[in-house]
Parts: sequence; structure tokens; C-alpha cells
Amino acid sequence: MITNLLQGKKGIIFGALNNKSIAWHVAEKAHAQGARIVLTNAPVAIRMGTITELAEKTGSEVISADATSMKDLEVLFMRAMEIFEDKIDFVLHSIGMSPNVRKGIPYAEISYENMLKTLDISALSFHRILQTAYKLDAIREWGSVVALTYVAAQRTLAGYNDMGDAKALLESISRSFGYIYGKGRHVRVNTVSQSPTATTAGAGIEGFDSLVDFSDRMSPLGNADAADCADVCITLFSDLTRKITMQNIFNDGGFSSMGMSQRAIEQYRKSFDECTDK
Amino acid sequence: MITNLLQGKKGIIFGALNNKSIAWHVAEKAHAQGARIVLTNAPVAIRMGTITELAEKTGSEVISADATSMKDLEVLFMRAMEIFEDKIDFVLHSIGMSPNVRKGIPYAEISYENMLKTLDISALSFHRILQTAYKLDAIREWGSVVALTYVAAQRTLAGYNDMGDAKALLESISRSFGYIYGKGRHVRVNTVSQSPTATTAGAGIEGFDSLVDFSDRMSPLGNADAADCADVCITLFSDLTRKITMQNIFNDGGFSSMGMSQRAIEQYRKSFDECTDK
Amino acid sequence: MITNLLQGKKGIIFGALNNKSIAWHVAEKAHAQGARIVLTNAPVAIRMGTITELAEKTGSEVISADATSMKDLEVLFMRAMEIFEDKIDFVLHSIGMSPNVRKGIPYAEISYENMLKTLDISALSFHRILQTAYKLDAIREWGSVVALTYVAAQRTLAGYNDMGDAKALLESISRSFGYIYGKGRHVRVNTVSQSPTATTAGAGIEGFDSLVDFSDRMSPLGNADAADCADVCITLFSDLTRKITMQNIFNDGGFSSMGMSQRAIEQYRKSFDECTDK
Amino acid sequence: MITNLLQGKKGIIFGALNNKSIAWHVAEKAHAQGARIVLTNAPVAIRMGTITELAEKTGSEVISADATSMKDLEVLFMRAMEIFEDKIDFVLHSIGMSPNVRKGIPYAEISYENMLKTLDISALSFHRILQTAYKLDAIREWGSVVALTYVAAQRTLAGYNDMGDAKALLESISRSFGYIYGKGRHVRVNTVSQSPTATTAGAGIEGFDSLVDFSDRMSPLGNADAADCADVCITLFSDLTRKITMQNIFNDGGFSSMGMSQRAIEQYRKSFDECTDK
Repeated sequence: MITNLLQGKKGIIFGALNNKSIAWHVAEKAHAQGARIVLTNAPVAIRMGTITELAEKTGSEVISADATSMKDLEVLFMRAMEIFEDKIDFVLHSIGMSPNVRKGIPYAEISYENMLKTLDISALSFHRILQTAYKLDAIREWGSVVALTYVAAQRTLAGYNDMGDAKALLESISRSFGYIYGKGRHVRVNTVSQSPTATTAGAGIEGFDSLVDFSDRMSPLGNADAADCADVCITLFSDLTRKITMQNIFNDGGFSSMGMSQRAIEQYRKSFDECTDK
Repeated sequence: MITNLLQGKKGIIFGALNNKSIAWHVAEKAHAQGARIVLTNAPVAIRMGTITELAEKTGSEVISADATSMKDLEVLFMRAMEIFEDKIDFVLHSIGMSPNVRKGIPYAEISYENMLKTLDISALSFHRILQTAYKLDAIREWGSVVALTYVAAQRTLAGYNDMGDAKALLESISRSFGYIYGKGRHVRVNTVSQSPTATTAGAGIEGFDSLVDFSDRMSPLGNADAADCADVCITLFSDLTRKITMQNIFNDGGFSSMGMSQRAIEQYRKSFDECTDK
Repeated sequence: MITNLLQGKKGIIFGALNNKSIAWHVAEKAHAQGARIVLTNAPVAIRMGTITELAEKTGSEVISADATSMKDLEVLFMRAMEIFEDKIDFVLHSIGMSPNVRKGIPYAEISYENMLKTLDISALSFHRILQTAYKLDAIREWGSVVALTYVAAQRTLAGYNDMGDAKALLESISRSFGYIYGKGRHVRVNTVSQSPTATTAGAGIEGFDSLVDFSDRMSPLGNADAADCADVCITLFSDLTRKITMQNIFNDGGFSSMGMSQRAIEQYRKSFDECTDK
Repeated sequence: MITNLLQGKKGIIFGALNNKSIAWHVAEKAHAQGARIVLTNAPVAIRMGTITELAEKTGSEVISADATSMKDLEVLFMRAMEIFEDKIDFVLHSIGMSPNVRKGIPYAEISYENMLKTLDISALSFHRILQTAYKLDAIREWGSVVALTYVAAQRTLAGYNDMGDAKALLESISRSFGYIYGKGRHVRVNTVSQSPTATTAGAGIEGFDSLVDFSDRMSPLGNADAADCADVCITLFSDLTRKITMQNIFNDGGFSSMGMSQRAIEQYRKSFDECTDK
């Protein structure tokens, strides 16, 4: 069904690496809903991934930008407005990386140089994007900005390391700047907290497969996948959610509101069956 | 812009009294998005209000039902499925009433007979609707059920009396039945927590006008109105939010995430100006 | 170590059935900290349990009262003040019962007569106690009232049925009346959300043992037991927490802030070992 | 009343500047409850403040340490264990500073060099303390660590700038390391979220006085002061709260659970009196 929910809107999408990326799905769905898009990612991610394929499919330009560089971000927003001959309507932030996770350094032994990098890349980058857009007055009134996050911001997950802290910081920045951007320019800022998703980034988390299985059995609707997440982003970019701001929307099949499901506890119970070796 | 987001979907909308009602706006917007609707309300509300006008505008039938009567609810769902010649895709619950509020009985002196009525009408009615639909298997797979609520479920507001408790119970029922309906039939159940809205019901709250003003100044985007709320309900009824369940979505211009805004504190400060009589 | 934290204080403790009851441990610990106590329970619970043994150990009187009867509650508070020749300093509410759970009626098929009883006994009883005390001005300024609750108020647990809803309502009543009692008389009202505890009531929940095991492995400090809970209640009754009110304190070894622990996921993983029969 | 709640316990207290500091009150109260203490602060804070007066009153030694220096922290913990001839039982973190707030840079124009300093000083310092203690195995089993925070971590306050983000990060670190320290050594880690308090740090926030007044009128028990906060810290350091971990305890007279109080709205209403000039 063609609904044209984003007809005439222009957006910048950060963080599409390959077709497993949530940002990839958002770009495809936004395009299908009538939006024009500029894609951006860090130079290294552009080289490693397949973003040009996405650009072709969606008729988009790719602009390389390091989201921790104010200069890159300024050039990006300026260039995007040139391309669109217009202001921006929506922005997606899907950026996260922890050197501590990558190097397998346990949370109780982390390097603070690494942790500051985790926070800078995964959370301050969102502030940088918002500050750049705000300074350039690049986002149209009633525009919408979304960042992707995870329940680790609220609840600790073994192995998720300093990414949980980075997501908590990201969500706080979303509220803090959401206040500024809301009162000043009627732009809304929200986060979407997604089920564990088998992206290239997600696969780096220790014990990820068991977690995904558990999460799926705990969630009455099962885990949400990248396409589900993209759908929710479309609603947040549309004009139908103009007064939702400074919120964290869980798109997780119900996981965040579950204490224990029958399916998960039944599976758990099997772990005590006699023939298992413990 | 015509987006046909609910093309071919069928819904039941509880609680449209007159054109100030949020349910009224939901019905209009759902109709405009291509949905077919059955309207329902309590017999007394149908007499007091102007629901037949809405029925004409939206080409809907009105079925009278007391939402605390299992028999009425069963007849309602059976009749709606007859009319649609199909199962239901979405349901809106917008029902709330407190005899203690109506009679001006302070919260520290309430009658428990009244309080049980408040809970039955405002919260258990949602369970009754869900239980009836579940028993009749009346909601199609991946259908969506929404109830309207208020931040009083989380934070106490002077004068809101036992309605805060009723909303907390309503939100809990939404989670509890959301689990059941999600795992069993892939139906999602959510609540939308709305800014204070000048409906006929809202106007009954003591000191409502000052609260609305304060809430508006606290919210970076200002208060959400009934039409804004209806838009959000449309997104929740659509196929774009299929994995969101057991959630409470704040549609409040940012109020729930604010501690203090500049606009509100500046107004507050004026209260200490010397010429005011205290 | 004798700390006399409640020296000279007088309290009423609802809900001690036998020595597995949390209320039993609270009574013992409060007595050990220098408090005088009146014990109360429903007539049937007094007959079924061993409360007189507790009364002897703590030098307390037992007053029979049905917590859903305003007359019984009024007599109880009047009589307690006579015994103490003084006002009350603290009150513990540890009351919960669901006819739907007892009769094994699934949540999607519950009787509303039963559900209203669940709410009346498990939640409105707390309002009744507070309203009675408030009317009689029975609690001294800076007194403290605590009710016991469970994380099911926030997150759905399979099999917990309408008790989750009752706990959500209880916590809301705690906030609502906490506001009234705080501003009027400087009395604080809080809830303590406890790990699943092997009391006579807890044992009635379906699949309780697996849940207790999972909860223990998820909680970095393990489950809190009845004695741990009693210790926390002592701090809330003491003068050291005079500005804490309308809060829900999790005493759960960290469970409520966990997404996934290494111990729990390792156990979960064993359920997939090949020799288990699925 | 002497209760000796911390008899025999040894603690390190970070952040006492002068007798307005919450940490100062915690040190005095911990001492009065029988604890031995080591005081610490940054060299510049030791020079600016009056910590030696506190050291004399409480028979404590002062050890200078920069909480962003792993070397200083290691020396501090080693030296404290030498002084005590024993491990540590409790630690208080009361450290926060934002160069952006100090220099009056608005949140939409902040320097990221400054923001990373805010985060490093106000939040990562807590991780550094915990990591140092963990590495040295300096905290006894069932020990307790507390950091002070503010509701700005959950809700945005105009003028609070990047300190809200720093507090959100601090609370996340408290949960993340609370998991590690809990499972590994049975040490608990919590935060106390305090009413706005007229400390030297608090006074730096723009519009602080109006906020304090509003907060006081919103809170049914009024704002909690530094002494109230110290009392709560004592309970968290004591053996009475051994299973509370990864929690954020609001000590705020009820503010965090309030939507609107009668006292605050009545004051607010005065701002509209005719003679006020707008």
C-alpha cells in the first residue's frame, strides 16, 4: 500500500553501513513514503559497507562525514540544504561504537580514554548534530529528529559494557536538546529503543545469540527487527506525531514491560533437566 | 494529504460524546484515513451528546453499550463483526468517570463504593472489552487496541482524586492483557498519555484552567490537543507500529520529561511581584 | 548490635500470618529496635496462623480487624492509641489476596466480582487504613507508613494474574495519599518492592520456584529475603528517612535494574543442550 | 539519640568543601554513628574550602586526590586502608562540576571539550573510584557505595545545562558497576537523588532561588536539606539495606512523584493577578 506519509519531506540519515543496518531500512522506507534523502556515514564505514548501493536504490547522494567533527557536520548540513534547495524535515541518528567492547576489555578494567571515545561517538555525536542544525537553522519548524537506542540505558546487560552508559547519555541528550529545540523552533527529538537486532554492530556483543533468543521468548510479539524499527521511525518523521517529544519509544515486542513470560520460563526450566551436564 | 493509512481497516471507538471528545477526533481521522468505524457509548452519553452527528459524518453506525456490562460488550462486538462482515482491526477506549470527583468528595474522605465504581468504569471496562474481544476472537491478528490515559497515573495532581489511581490501574491492565493478547493472537495493546485536554470530562477537574496553562508553559511544544492525540492513535492503529505493545506513549509536547522550563518559571516568578496581594 | 533505631516509637503491623511472613520479621525487628507494636490481621488469618506466638515474643497485643471494614479499622486505631496512650508512629501494610489466583482462573477469563475483591483487599485496604488514620489524626507528625509490593506493578509476570494490577493500584494509592498526608500532617507514605519471597502467599503463584531461581540468578546480590525486607522497613520507620515519601523502594538485590546477568544467561543457555528433551 | 548504626565501619567521603556541602553533613553524621572516616577532595577544593575544620571535628585525616586521576585514587585507597588497618565499608561520591555552567555557555552552544570535562569530573570519576576500589579489593564484602544525583537526570531543567546529562550518565554507571561489584564482591552501589540544595555548587545554577521555592511548594514534605540527605546516606551505609543495589533513591519530600500540588498551583495563579506587570 502506498501511503506517501513523507511526501515532499527531506531527511538526513546517519549510520547505514549495509543492508542489515536499521538506518538502511529507514532510508528505504522513507524513500518509499515519498521522502528525499541524503545518506551519510564516516569515511571508514562508507569504505567498509555498501552504502552506494542504497544511494542508487533511493536516488540519494552520499556525503561523507565524521559525526565527531563539527566541521564535517556543518559541511554536511550546508550541502544537504543545497541539494534539497530547502531545509531538512527529519534526521536519523544511528551511530554507536565502543572501543572497550571492540577490544574485549571488561567493564571493570576499561580505559577512560576509550570510554570518552565511546561517549563521544555514540552520544555526543547526537548533540553535535543537533547543535549544528540548530546553529544553521537547518531543520524546518515541526521537523523531527530520532536517535536509536537500547534498553541497556535503563537496565544492565552483562557484556554490553560502556554502551549501556553511552545509551543512557544519548537518551538524556535527546531530552535536554529536545527541550531547547522544541521551545525555540518546534522541532521534536525522540529516541526509539529497539529489540536486540542482528546488525553488524549488534553481533559484536558477547553472548548476543542467547540474549536474542531470550528476548524473543520474553516478548509477547517477539523481537522487533530492523524493518519494524524503520516503520516506527516513519511515524515519528510524519506529521502525525507532532507533539511527541523528549520521549523514548520502546519498539520491542513488549520486552521492556515484561517481568517473565511463560515461553521464557518454560525454556529456562529445561536447563534443569537431569541429563544436562552442569 | 490523503495517506489512506487505515485503508480497509475496521474499528470500534468507545467514548465519543461531542466534538470536544478525543474519541470524536479519532473517529474523524480514522475515517479520513480509510477506516470503517462503529461508534459506541453508554446510553446516557448517547442521549447527552451529539454522537449521531459524528455517525453521519463518518458513515458509521452507533451501537449503545454500557462498558461495565459483559452482555452489552458481547452484543456490541458480535454486531460490529456483522456490520463489517469481518473481524475488528482496532479499538479505542476513551472512558473515564469518577463519582468522587463529580460529587466533590475529597480524596481523604472518599466513599469506597464510589471508588470501586471509578475503577470499574474507568479501568476494568478496558479489561472487559479485551476479555470480550479475546473470547470472541474478534480482533484480527496484528490488530491494535489503545486506551487514553493521563500523567496522573505516574505523578499526583491535586484535585485529580481517584482518577489518578484509576489511570494507574488502566495502564497496568493494558500491560497485563497486552501480554496475553500479544502472545496468543499478536494483538498489541497500548495507552496514550495525553496533555490535559479541554474535553467535557477534563473540565470537571478542580483548578483545571491553571493546570492547563502551567502544563502548556512547561511543555516545549505546548499542550497536545484532541486532534494531535487522534493523529497518534492513527499511527498506533496502522501497520507501522506492529511491534509496539504494552507501552504508554506520552503525547504531551514534552511535559512528562520536563523538570522546569524557562517559560513556566518566569511566569511563576511573577507571582512574587510586590503588588500582588498574598 | 543494639541500635535502638525505633526507641519509643509505636507501630501497627498488618499481615503477620506465620514466621514466613514478611510482617512477622518486621514485627520482630521493630521490637528489637525498641518499638512497641500492635499486631493485626483478619479473623480467619489469626485462626489459621500463629500470630499469638509473635505477640508473646514481642510483648504485643493482637487486635483482629478486617482491613476492608472501616468500622474494624476505626476500632483498631482507637484501641491501639489506648494501649499506647499515644499516637502511632508507623504502620506496615502487608495484605494481598486474589480470588482469581486462588481459584486458578486465567487472567483472560477472570470474574470482575473477583477482581474487585482483589483490588479491595490488596489495594483499597491501604487507602482505608490511611483514611481512618487521617480522620482520627492517629499518626504523629513525621510518622511513616509502608506497604509491601512487587515488581509485577511495573512489569507483567505470567501467572501473577490480577495481583500485578492490584500492586500497581496500591503504589498509586501510596503516592496519592502520600501527597495528602504529607502536606497535611508531615506523614510519609512509601512502598517497598521486594524480591519474590517464599511466604505462604507467594507460594500460591504458578511456577513460583523457577521464577525465584531466575530472579536470584538475575540479581547481583541474590534475592532479598523476608529479614532483609524487614531491615529496610526499619530504616523507613526511623527518623533517618523523614523526607522520603511517595516512593517505591526496590529491595531486590538489583533485579529491577537488570536486563540480563551472566549467571542467568549461562543457566538459560543450558536449556539448549542436546540431550534435553524438548 | 545515639544509635551507633555505623559502629566499627570505615568510610571514604569525597566532596566536602564547606559546611554547606552535603558531604560535610554525611561525614558528621557518619562520625556520630560510630564510623571512622577519611576525607578527600581535589587540591583546589581543599584550599578553597574548610575541610580541615571538619577533619578536626570528626577525628579524620584529609587526603588530597584528584578524582580524575587513577594514580591519586590508588594512593588514596591504599593510604586509607593503612590508616584504618582494614578494608573500607562505605564510600560517598559527591562530585560535580560543569565548565559550561561555570562559563555561562548555553546548552545549544556548548564546547565538547567542556562537556567531556563535565562528564569526566561528574560521572566518570565515579567509575574511576569504583574501578580502583575493585582492583585493590579495597571494599569489604557487603560494603556500600553512594553517589549523589539530581532529578535532572530524568527530567530537563532550564539552565541545568550538561549537568543533567552528567547525572544521567552517573546513574547509569552506578547501575553498570553495581552489577559488577554486586555479583563479584557483594558490594552495593546506589545513588541518592536530592532536592535542590543550597550548596556552593547548587548556587551556580541560573534561576536557582525560584526553582528552590517551586520545588518546596511542589513537595508535600518540603525540600530535603543536606542534613536530611546525610541521614539517608547513613541508612544506605548501614547493614539494614544490604540487598538494595543499582537503585536511585529520591530524597526530595515527594517532588519526583508530584504532577502538581495545591500550594504550587495557588502560588502560580497569583502570577496572573491584574496588578502584576507582564
